[in-house]
This record gives sequence, C-alpha cells and structure tokens, in this order.
Amino acid sequence: MRDNFHDDLDRIGATLIDMTGLVASAMSMATDALLDADIALADSVISADAKIDGAYQDLEERSFELLARQQPVAGDLRTIVTSLRMVADLERMGDLALHIAKIARMRYPNSAVPDELRETIREMGQVAERIVVKTGDVVAGKDLTLASELETDDDVMDALHKKLFSVLLFQDWPYGVETAIDITLLGRYYERFADHAVSVARRIVFLVTGEMPRTAA
Amino acid sequence: MRDNFHDDLDRIGATLIDMTGLVASAMSMATDALLDADIALADSVISADAKIDGAYQDLEERSFELLARQQPVAGDLRTIVTSLRMVADLERMGDLALHIAKIARMRYPNSAVPDELRETIREMGQVAERIVVKTGDVVAGKDLTLASELETDDDVMDALHKKLFSVLLFQDWPYGVETAIDITLLGRYYERFADHAVSVARRIVFLVTGEMPRTAA
Repeated sequence: MRDNFHDDLDRIGATLIDMTGLVASAMSMATDALLDADIALADSVISADAKIDGAYQDLEERSFELLARQQPVAGDLRTIVTSLRMVADLERMGDLALHIAKIARMRYPNSAVPDELRETIREMGQVAERIVVKTGDVVAGKDLTLASELETDDDVMDALHKKLFSVLLFQDWPYGVETAIDITLLGRYYERFADHAVSVARRIVFLVTGEMPRTAA
Repeated sequence: MRDNFHDDLDRIGATLIDMTGLVASAMSMATDALLDADIALADSVISADAKIDGAYQDLEERSFELLARQQPVAGDLRTIVTSLRMVADLERMGDLALHIAKIARMRYPNSAVPDELRETIREMGQVAERIVVKTGDVVAGKDLTLASELETDDDVMDALHKKLFSVLLFQDWPYGVETAIDITLLGRYYERFADHAVSVARRIVFLVTGEMPRTAA
C-alpha cells in the first residue's frame, strides 16, 4: 500500500505531465494562430495561459507543503526539489507560446509571417511540439534514450533558427523592419521553448543517474 | 556558536551575493564592449562566464549535499530550495550578458549600435547594472523596501525597451535588417536580464514574508 506522502509525490509527477500537455497544446495553437492569422485561436492561447500559471503555483505550493510537513530524504527530496525547477521551465514555455500568440494577435488580420518563411516557422512549431510531447514522455517514463533524442531535436531547432536568420539577411529583404523584428523575436521564442524542454529532460536524467545535467547556454 | 550546518547555509548566501557581483560586472563590461566596439572587453565577458557557471554548479552541488546530509526543516529548507532557484536566475543573467558580448564581438570593428540608439542602450545597461547591484543588496540585507524599488526599476527598463522599438519602427530606418535584428535581440537581452533580477528579489520577499512572489510574464 502507498502512503499519503507517496500519493502526494505521484500527484506532483502527474501535474508535471499534465503541464507538458497544456504547453504542447498552447504551442500548437500559437503556431496555427500565427500562420493562419487566426485571432480566436490566439485569444485561446492567451486565456489558457492562466491555467498553466495556476498549475505552476499549485505545484509550487504543494511541494513546499510537502517539504515542510514530511521532511523527505534522499531520492524523494531530490524529486521534489527537481520538480520545482522543472515546473518553472514549463511555466516559462507557456509564456513563450503566449508571446507567439500575442504577435499573431498584434498583426491580425495579416499574418506576421511572410510567405517565404511560412514553411520554416511551421517546421519550428512542429519541432517545438514534438520536443515537448517527448519531454512529457521522458517525465512519465524516465526514459534516458528518449531524453538523449531531445538533444538531437534541439539541434534541428537550432538549424531552423539559423535558417530563419539567413532568409532575413538575404539581401533586399522586402518586408520591412517591423516584420524583421517579428521574425527575430519569433525565432528566439521557438528556440528558447526547445531549450527549456531540453532542460526539463536533463533534470530527469539527473534524477535517474545522479549526474548533473549540462548547462544550456 | 554557529554549527557547521549554519556555516554552510551562510556560505550559500555569500555565494549568491558574490554571483550578483560577477553578473553586475559582466553586464557592465558587456555594455561597454558593445558601445565601444571593444573586442578585448567582449572576450573578457565571454571567458568570465565560466566563473559564473562554476559558481552555479558549485552552489547547486553544495545545496543538494546539504539537503541530503542535514535534512533541514522549515525556514532553513525553504532558504536552500529558494537559493537553488535564485542561482538559476543569476546563471541565466550571466548568459544574457554573454549574449550581448557576443553581438559586440560579431560586429567588431564596428559597433552593433547605431549612433541614435547609443544613449538608449547606455541607459539600459545602467538600469541593468543598478538592478543587479540592488538585487545583491536585497539578498544580503533582506530589505523589502529595496525589493519593491526593483519593480520600479524594471518599469524603467520596460519603457527603454519600448523606446528602442519606436526608433526601430520610425519610418525609413536607415541601418538595414542586420542592425534591426541586433537591436531587437539586444533589447530582449537587457529586458530579460532585469526580469530575472526582479525574480531573485521576489524570491527574497517570499522567504521573508512567506507570500508567493508574482509570476513574471
């Protein structure tokens, strides 16, 4: 039989997995809102962020309560402390999806993304979603092989990010400075989103192996 | 007489304060390197980042050791867990100063900042430095009045960030897309730097008052 403490610990793990789902959905909708200039979808992402923030605060409070009440040791303690850091990454990923939705909203009824960059942004959105779904699986299954796949996915994101800049810097960029700013920020948001997901996966590796994860620069 | 445990705890606090100093110095040098196209200074920032990363990893390891060995309770536990989160913010602030130095380096022998934006960037650098120095004082003195001042400083940073965009978007921006990208990213780095500093100060407020800090969006 499980005791209350381990039920609480399981609930923290379940909340983290739920949050990866919320964040994946936010990112998927934000990319669609951006490419289709869909303001209703953008607004959905913006209002759904409160749910992610709520999950974050709730998990934080429960973790502190658990730490104070139960004085967990060794592995349990490490799990709780690491969860507190993973949830901060996930909350930030929600913010980044929110920032993308806000750019979609700001440029409505136009799309912020010019035609020749649509495909690259679409791919960045797909990679971001794939990364966070895998991150959820890593959290759920403590699968180290899957965690190392995320490093490769992150390299794909970095390559797409570079590609974005190379189009921006191609001589005679015809879309003006405003669009260049939007694309620069969008590129940064997708790239940081992936970085945070990789950071969550690295913390799982740390929990399983006891080895400190590499620092994301 | 203090016991070993509380000496260890004091050392963690001292490391956090040291890190605010390292980060303040990195930011100050990065801004000078950027404005003066000073490649030697940019390189100093880049190589000094290893020291910040080292302090981060060291504090993380010592905290986990302390958690595992001493099973601290209540306030001490909260202090250690919160320190782990503050040190992550400080490490990230070091990375942002590093990113600024890298832009300085990339555009050498030119400055990445056109003349008409020098003053705004200089002010952003000054506000960033003031914020992190104050953050160090907040960590050292648990001064809640000073912590609330940081919210105002952060508003000043946001206003400067908006000013940057308004110049970029002024019609007939004459400096081309590459410079627009640089300025967009630089603005983002300074603004995020301030956000992370405010986040550190909010965690101190949380430690002192027990109230959860507001989430930085």
